[in-house]
Amino acid sequence: MTVYERTPETTPSRHPERARYDADTVHSILDEALIGHLAFVVDDVPQVLPTLFVRVDESIFLHFSTGAGPARLAKRRWGIPVSFEATLVDGLVLARSTFNHSANYRSVVVHGKLSLVDDKARKREVMRQLVEKIVPGRSEDARGPDDRELRQTAVMELPLETVSAKVRTGDPKDDARDMKRECWAGVVPLLYGRGAPVPAADLGAGITIPRYLGPQTPR
Amino acid sequence: MTVYERTPETTPSRHPERARYDADTVHSILDEALIGHLAFVVDDVPQVLPTLFVRVDESIFLHFSTGAGPARLAKRRWGIPVSFEATLVDGLVLARSTFNHSANYRSVVVHGKLSLVDDKARKREVMRQLVEKIVPGRSEDARGPDDRELRQTAVMELPLETVSAKVRTGDPKDDARDMKRECWAGVVPLLYGRGAPVPAADLGAGITIPRYLGPQTPR
Repeated sequence: MTVYERTPETTPSRHPERARYDADTVHSILDEALIGHLAFVVDDVPQVLPTLFVRVDESIFLHFSTGAGPARLAKRRWGIPVSFEATLVDGLVLARSTFNHSANYRSVVVHGKLSLVDDKARKREVMRQLVEKIVPGRSEDARGPDDRELRQTAVMELPLETVSAKVRTGDPKDDARDMKRECWAGVVPLLYGRGAPVPAADLGAGITIPRYLGPQTPR
Repeated sequence: MTVYERTPETTPSRHPERARYDADTVHSILDEALIGHLAFVVDDVPQVLPTLFVRVDESIFLHFSTGAGPARLAKRRWGIPVSFEATLVDGLVLARSTFNHSANYRSVVVHGKLSLVDDKARKREVMRQLVEKIVPGRSEDARGPDDRELRQTAVMELPLETVSAKVRTGDPKDDARDMKRECWAGVVPLLYGRGAPVPAADLGAGITIPRYLGPQTPR
């Protein structure tokens, strides 16, 4: 089993006991999360962007228009320092005191340098994997990118090296003094799902909902 | 109607036509989003943290343990520059080409300086509003924070001044050349809900699920 290194950078200042360093946990969170959040610095000002992403082996890949901020930065200097985070919130944890309220969650934080992927075949394959992550089966139905579209797409790689997960599960942890309080305590699960596909207004008659959009509940 | 100023900092480099500057849109996104993502810089390295938050009037408020990174930073220098983002993903937009795939979303980005709230009464009120945002009715049931707990909580304020929303809705936008393709196109809605509350293992017999945890579907 792959285990990432525990370093000062990957040790949380709060609740270090919730940290996880095994690749199985890190990968499963990254593979389940639809969007992540990329932080970078422009002229000393911190920036944060939501973005789709896909993990392939030991890297995550993001894509931007070549005109977008991170891609323009990357052209100026190779390997821009970033931090990337993806979080799944699984439940609201209701304790007898508001101070002890919490959330059950699974998150991953990656630090590292984001670099442009130049190789055309690799870009094409990463974009295919991104589509397959979000809607498995879709890449064999929709038209794939042509060379011009690939050139307009900046695909960026962030290696999973300085990385850790943080996981909270289970019941609230209450103070002893609150245990006699007549107050409900427990967890409210948060649910994620997909609704029935809504056809585009200009969809040709006779094109039915494809089998790969059948009932499924990944978030 | 309050409208925030459009500045270079709040004009997206991509799809500026999706930007929204009215307070109604910005507030509604912030009030619906459970978590946000805070970016800040420590020793030239960008950091990003997921966090619960609440909007009150024209500020958002975050809270951390006084030992956590942002609170420690704020003690060192008043007003740390941050960027904060909250995103709701409403649907997957499936076009006839993978290049034109997209997502329907509503997001808010705030730039500004995060500062500590010192006033005890204000801290208490903000924490109450945070609880009420997430579980309306809860703050009248669970025990509120005592003075020691309040001292352990760093409440931080970020004013809604340099702020904008970005919204995408509706159908895919396809190239003319792809319109004859026999490929389903449309939107897959993403759904968010709350499951049945799960009582804590140590919950006293006879304490039933409170009325304020009844059926509801905010995310």
